[in-house]
Parts: sequence; structure tokens; C-alpha cells
Amino acid sequence: MSRLFKRFSSTITMKPTPSKAHLHRSLPASSFPIGYVATGIHAGVKKKPGVLDVGLIVSTAEHPASAAACFTRNVFKAAPVVVSDQILSENGGRARAVVVNSGCANAVTGRQGMENAWAMVRETDALLPPSTSTAKNHTLVMSTGVIGQNLPISKIVDGIRSQAAHTLASDFPAWERAAKAFMTTDTFPKLRSRVFSINGTEFRMAGMDKGAGMIHPNMSPASTSFSSLHATLLGCIFTDAAVSPRSLQKALTYAVDRSFNSISVDGEMSTNDTILVLANGAAASKKDGQVVEIDEETDKEGYEVFKTQLTKFAAELAQLVVRDGEGATKFVTVNVKGAPTYEVAHRVASRISTSALVKTAFYGEDANWGRILSAAGSISIPDLDPSKVSVTFLPSDNTASLPVLVNGEPENVDEVRAKQILTLEDFGICIDLGGLGNEEATYWTCDFSYDYVKINGDYRS
Amino acid sequence: MSRLFKRFSSTITMKPTPSKAHLHRSLPASSFPIGYVATGIHAGVKKKPGVLDVGLIVSTAEHPASAAACFTRNVFKAAPVVVSDQILSENGGRARAVVVNSGCANAVTGRQGMENAWAMVRETDALLPPSTSTAKNHTLVMSTGVIGQNLPISKIVDGIRSQAAHTLASDFPAWERAAKAFMTTDTFPKLRSRVFSINGTEFRMAGMDKGAGMIHPNMSPASTSFSSLHATLLGCIFTDAAVSPRSLQKALTYAVDRSFNSISVDGEMSTNDTILVLANGAAASKKDGQVVEIDEETDKEGYEVFKTQLTKFAAELAQLVVRDGEGATKFVTVNVKGAPTYEVAHRVASRISTSALVKTAFYGEDANWGRILSAAGSISIPDLDPSKVSVTFLPSDNTASLPVLVNGEPENVDEVRAKQILTLEDFGICIDLGGLGNEEATYWTCDFSYDYVKINGDYRS
Repeated sequence: MSRLFKRFSSTITMKPTPSKAHLHRSLPASSFPIGYVATGIHAGVKKKPGVLDVGLIVSTAEHPASAAACFTRNVFKAAPVVVSDQILSENGGRARAVVVNSGCANAVTGRQGMENAWAMVRETDALLPPSTSTAKNHTLVMSTGVIGQNLPISKIVDGIRSQAAHTLASDFPAWERAAKAFMTTDTFPKLRSRVFSINGTEFRMAGMDKGAGMIHPNMSPASTSFSSLHATLLGCIFTDAAVSPRSLQKALTYAVDRSFNSISVDGEMSTNDTILVLANGAAASKKDGQVVEIDEETDKEGYEVFKTQLTKFAAELAQLVVRDGEGATKFVTVNVKGAPTYEVAHRVASRISTSALVKTAFYGEDANWGRILSAAGSISIPDLDPSKVSVTFLPSDNTASLPVLVNGEPENVDEVRAKQILTLEDFGICIDLGGLGNEEATYWTCDFSYDYVKINGDYRS
Repeated sequence: MSRLFKRFSSTITMKPTPSKAHLHRSLPASSFPIGYVATGIHAGVKKKPGVLDVGLIVSTAEHPASAAACFTRNVFKAAPVVVSDQILSENGGRARAVVVNSGCANAVTGRQGMENAWAMVRETDALLPPSTSTAKNHTLVMSTGVIGQNLPISKIVDGIRSQAAHTLASDFPAWERAAKAFMTTDTFPKLRSRVFSINGTEFRMAGMDKGAGMIHPNMSPASTSFSSLHATLLGCIFTDAAVSPRSLQKALTYAVDRSFNSISVDGEMSTNDTILVLANGAAASKKDGQVVEIDEETDKEGYEVFKTQLTKFAAELAQLVVRDGEGATKFVTVNVKGAPTYEVAHRVASRISTSALVKTAFYGEDANWGRILSAAGSISIPDLDPSKVSVTFLPSDNTASLPVLVNGEPENVDEVRAKQILTLEDFGICIDLGGLGNEEATYWTCDFSYDYVKINGDYRS
């Protein structure tokens, strides 16, 4: 790389990280799923008065909601991950509430950490309305924040007891409070909702997530032998559709692979990464007094519609995290096609999306396709013929795309045009592996800026 | 991670990258291997007048030197990698010279690139003194610089023809010129030498390398089905010992795994990464007029001494690259022990060494062991028991080490003491996986600073 003579250039011109405040928006009450109440409270995990740090979302349906989860693959499982995984497993994929705290990850906290996570579960369980469930525990728990420190558990328990019950509500501000309680370095609460139909019946979905740094999740389904880490990605989705626990887990696993497992801010998998979904069936039809659950085996068509909706919604939530990435000034869609398998396409897209040289070039608005190619090539791609590989830059403003490498031959790139595209806040790159197959994968990533170093070099000081 | 309220702190306090000029030093002539001449010339690949951009090192021994190489595993092989690999393979592991250019990587340059690499080989071959070799080609070639641009080959050929022959010499300034011709964003030429003994005979070794960014090599031996990329790590080592080609390759592969394949500046494998070694036997004893080559099968003890010397020397050269890492202000030794295999230890050490969160914490002089643990845990470590894992900070000033996690339990860390250690330019971290086995691996890495973003965000502009 000819960075000749560039090493000691004058002073830092620090581009300001653009505000993302406009990405938080008011949502119509009619778009939220029925049969849920939510809130966010200030329990005191975070020192600053009034800042929300504990969130609760509760299904009020009599029928216990189906629940599914994907947890981090990190070896060092945080206590809330272990506890949520255990509850889901014991309950056969049913749950009725989610409780989350920010400000402390309850990770690497030993026996005390496990007790504290259980205390959050029990305290939330005590708030729940009657149901037909016979399960011992009903609440799934999540935490995010500093690692290696114990939760101020009495503050959390007191907060849930004294504040949560009388602030739980189903309106937008209540959901917004819950979303705010998830935030750590996030600059806006990440809350979305949508309405969809299956077999002519209308359903709703709402979801929230958090994350800005330590974002490169790689999550696997609940209750496998290999789940759990320190996750700074937390998300949960609630729907009033009814889906069997087995099909809900299958749909979530598919959706997470194509959303939360396809984003990177800094390449860092966490010890707590968790995505939960609850389906309480409050809007579903009943047969003989029983909620009719969609199941892949009995209603393939309905299942596919649900899976597609869940995947799109998960991608929408996941992209918000990249847009709010620490120090991010760019939102870049990386598409890899012509791959022999989805896994190969996904690995190549992931490598490009985590490359420090690619991401600093994005920050510098430099169409440095050599770095993109070099990063892609560091992945083993069986049978790849470099003379068939193409790279194209894709502007987000509907102007023409810009091929920079075509069938292995560098184009005579118009640098002015390249700069035009890279100056956009949003753009894409497409890498065609040259007909190894028809599989493709998409990743979403951001650039690597001075602000990322600032935010994370400063962290605990 | 509770980076709460930290996101928008005031202004950047940019720590200056410390000068590394003192790492370039004069070396005694007696420490250089006999039977070699070297030079560096300004051929005009780099625009700035007088800056050296083509280097040559030639064995003057009649006996054709044994040669071995490790090349990048990148899918997109640069032309010089393909050509050098082919020559080594055709010659049965023999070569007599090395030619290198900086300023242009000759990567992703198609057929023209191959012709240009061969032209450099032929032009250098023409300079060589007579030898007993019957090989068609004698010179190995390396390039580093911009990707996707063709070499100014007539300038290079003219330069070799008109300047190289009468400047080749065996003194320190000649070796120094060669080392300077390797440099791209390097701030000092990286040249070292050493004297060692095998079976009572004294030998010498000299070597040079270059690299500062795009540094995370993963190289495999020559002539495998899976070698070659865009490498910004180039290095070569010359000895006057005699070692059979087969044993030389085996020793180099071992050495590279524990040196160049154990360093990271930015996690970026390149398309050109190459390490070469030549052993011309000029100081070796002869039997019946033939040089006696060390071979593992016939002289196990001699081979082991050579392998150890080569490994130590390669590690010395590799560490220089990390010390000169783009924007680096810290030199950190990451040791992982108690692993079931060397490969597991190496993968965990590599992951920690490439973690953006760990490296920004080093820059911020923050003993954030949670990030270290989280990064380590993102690697699959079979049978790991988190309750047996320990993490210790190791100061480089002979003061006491600082345990921060002992058998899975966080220590009550003295933050003042932690800061003392992290404020040092050199320090180490040790992760004990808790008795999974007795294997260990060491990685060398640097921190991630504003300057890294500056150097690479600015790159082509």
C-alpha cells in the first residue's frame, strides 16, 4: 500500500458524527401488538437522576406466550443469559414477560450474579396477571453495561416493586420508556412497530433493541450446548400473532442470521448478546376456546409469511444499531453474490464489514476497492477464480452504480464520481464472486472514525 | 458496557505517536553473513527524488543457496507471489537473489503484472556472478505498495541495469540501503543481524522486513494449493549456514508461525505477504568439495539449533513491525497458556490482539479486562470452565504483576497500580485458560489510536 509520505500529515480534521435523533419517531398506537404493557423506570443502576435503567414488557394475555431466543456464542456467559436460557428450556418455550437493566452487564459475576438475575425474574413474576400457565418462572431477563461488577440488586428490586406496577401501560410513551431503559451509549431509543396479515387476519409486531459498540453478534438458538457471552446487543420483539414455540424458534433463528447476525460496528461479539421474541396470540383466532398457533407443519404458508415479516422487522431493528454505531458517519450495505453457499457469502461479507482498513477508507470517503478485495480474499473461498470477480459501488441516491473491478480487471475509475458516491451517508458495495453459485448474503456496517477511538479509549476514565 | 454519558465528551486529546527512530541502529560488519552483497536504489517507482524503492540482495556463493518461503493465504495472489512460488518450485528450493520494490504492489494487475514480475527476475538474474546452478531463473521477487496499478517497469529495469551492479556491496551501508528500499509507511528501516554457532562452527544471519499497516499475516509454506494475497508484510533472512531446502522450509514454517504469523497491527492480511530465507552455505564446511547441508534427518541436533535461532531472529524482526505499527503508542505481548493445543492458544491470542475494543482501551491506558475476556470468549474453546480462567497484567519494568481475574473471580483491582502498568509503552497480558492443557502461544500487538484512523482515512487523498 503506497501510503508513502502520508504518515505524518498535519492535524486531525475531525468530521462530526451526524445526529441520529431523527431516527427516533412517534409510532401510532394501532401499530402496537395488543395484550402487552410496558414501562421503563429509574431504579438507580445509572447514577444520573431520572435516567431510565430498568425496562419491563409484560404480556397480559391469559394464554402464556410462545417465546424464543438467540443468545451469544461467547464462552463467558453472563448470568442473565444463563438464567433466560434455563427458563425457556424448562418452560418448553413459553414466557410472559421480559425485564432488562442497563448500566451493568451482570457478567463474570459468579454465584452472586446468578442470584441477582433470578431476583429480577422473581420480582417481575410477582407483577404478572393471572394466567393458565403452570410454569415456575415466567420472565426472561437481560442486562447490559459494565462487566465484572455486581448489580445493585436491592435498587432494582425496589424499583420494580414501587414503580413498575403503576406505570405499566400499552400506549406509545410506555413502550418508549421501555426502549429508553435499554440504552447505554445509544444516542436514541430504538423502537419500531408494524402491522401485517396472515391468512386475512391482521397482526402487529413491536420491537426494541440497543447497541452502539461491541457489536458483531453471532448468536445461536436457545438451549444449545454453545450459547452465551457478554452481549452489548439486546433486542426483543413482541407480537400478538400466535406461533408454536418450535416454529417461533425456527423463524427467529432464520431472521437473526439475516439481521442481527449480519451487522457489525466493531467486530466485537459480547457476553450478553440476546434477542428474544414473544408471541402472545392475543389477536389470534380461537378454536374450542384455545388459541390456534401457526406451526410450520400444519400451516406452511402462514409460517412463511410470519417468518418473512419477522426477518424484515429484525433487519429494520438491526440496521438501527449500525446507524447508531459508535462514531459512525456512514451506513454501508455490503452485498456478496455469486457464492456457492450462503455461509461463504456471509463470511466474506462479514470480513469486509469488519476490516479496519476498509472502514477507515469509508471514513475518509475513499473508494479504495483494493482494500475491499484484499479483505475478501483473506477468507478461504474454494474454487474462486480471481479473474471472474467484480466489485461495484452502489450509490443510495438512485444515480448510476460504479463498477471498479470487472472480471478481475481494474476499471479506469472516475475518481470524481467515486468521491460523489462515498460522500453520501448511505452507499453500498457489491462483490460478485463470479458464478461460483447463486447464493448471496448482505451485511450492514459503518465506518471507523476518530470518534470510535475517542469513545472507547475514554471509556472508564 | 456502561459507557454511559461518555459518548459526547469534549475534544480530542491526541497523544503523539512516539518516535521509533532509535530502533534503527548500526550493526557490526562481522555480524553479517558472508557471501552476500546488497543495495537499494531509487528507480523512480516513488516520485520523491532519492527515496530508495528497489532493493537487491545477492548471494555471491558458487553453491546455489537453499531457499524457502511463506506466502500469504489471500485468494487474490499478487503477481510477485505467484512468480516467486513458481521459481522456488521449479528450482527445488534453490535461489540466489532477492529483488524487491516498494511503492506499487503489482497486485490485481492481470497478465501485464505477471510479465512485469518476470522482467524484474530476469534483470536481476543478469547481474548474478557465475555459479554451479543449472536453473532457468535465480531471483525471487517481492512488491509492496498500491494495489491495482501496474509497475513502472521500464524505470525499474533501467534502475537495476544502470545503478544496481556498481552499488552492490557487503558493508552495513549496503544492507541498510536494501532495508530502506522496502519501506512504505514504515518510519525506520528494519534491519537486524546475529551470530550463532552450530556444532562449533560460527554462522551469521541478517534480515530485514517492512510493514506498519495491513499487518496480520497468515502465511503458509511455498507451493501449497493455498497461498498468496496482497501482503504488506515483506521480509527476508539471509544466512551463511548451509541447510537442505527441505529442512530450511520446515524450519521457516515453524519460525513464521511463532513470529510473523503471531503479530497484528490491524487484523488485515494482505495479498503480497511474503517471508523468504536464503542459506548460501558460504561459512559451512565442505566434504569432497561439496557444501555439507544441515538436514533434520541426518543432523537432528544441528537442525534444532538452526530452527531455534531462525525462530528467535524471525520474532525479533516481526516485533519491529508491531513497534512501528501505524499510529502505535503501545507494544503489548499477549500470552495465552493452559490451552489444550497450540492452535487454540494461538487463536485466542490472535482474537485478543485484533479486538478494536481491547486495542482502544490500551490506547486509553485502561486496564479493561472485561473486554479482554469477552474477546477471548468469542473463540470456541472446547471444555473451557470459566471458573478456572485467570487474567494478569504484566509490567515491563520488573515490578510486580497484577492479577485482575483469578479463577473466574474478579479481583478488587487497585486502579492506580493498573494505570501505572498501562502507562508503560511495553506491557503484557496473560490469559490462563485453567489447565485445559500445557500448550501456550504468544502474540504481539499494538494499540489502536487516532493516528491509525488518520493514516488510513487519509490514505489516497
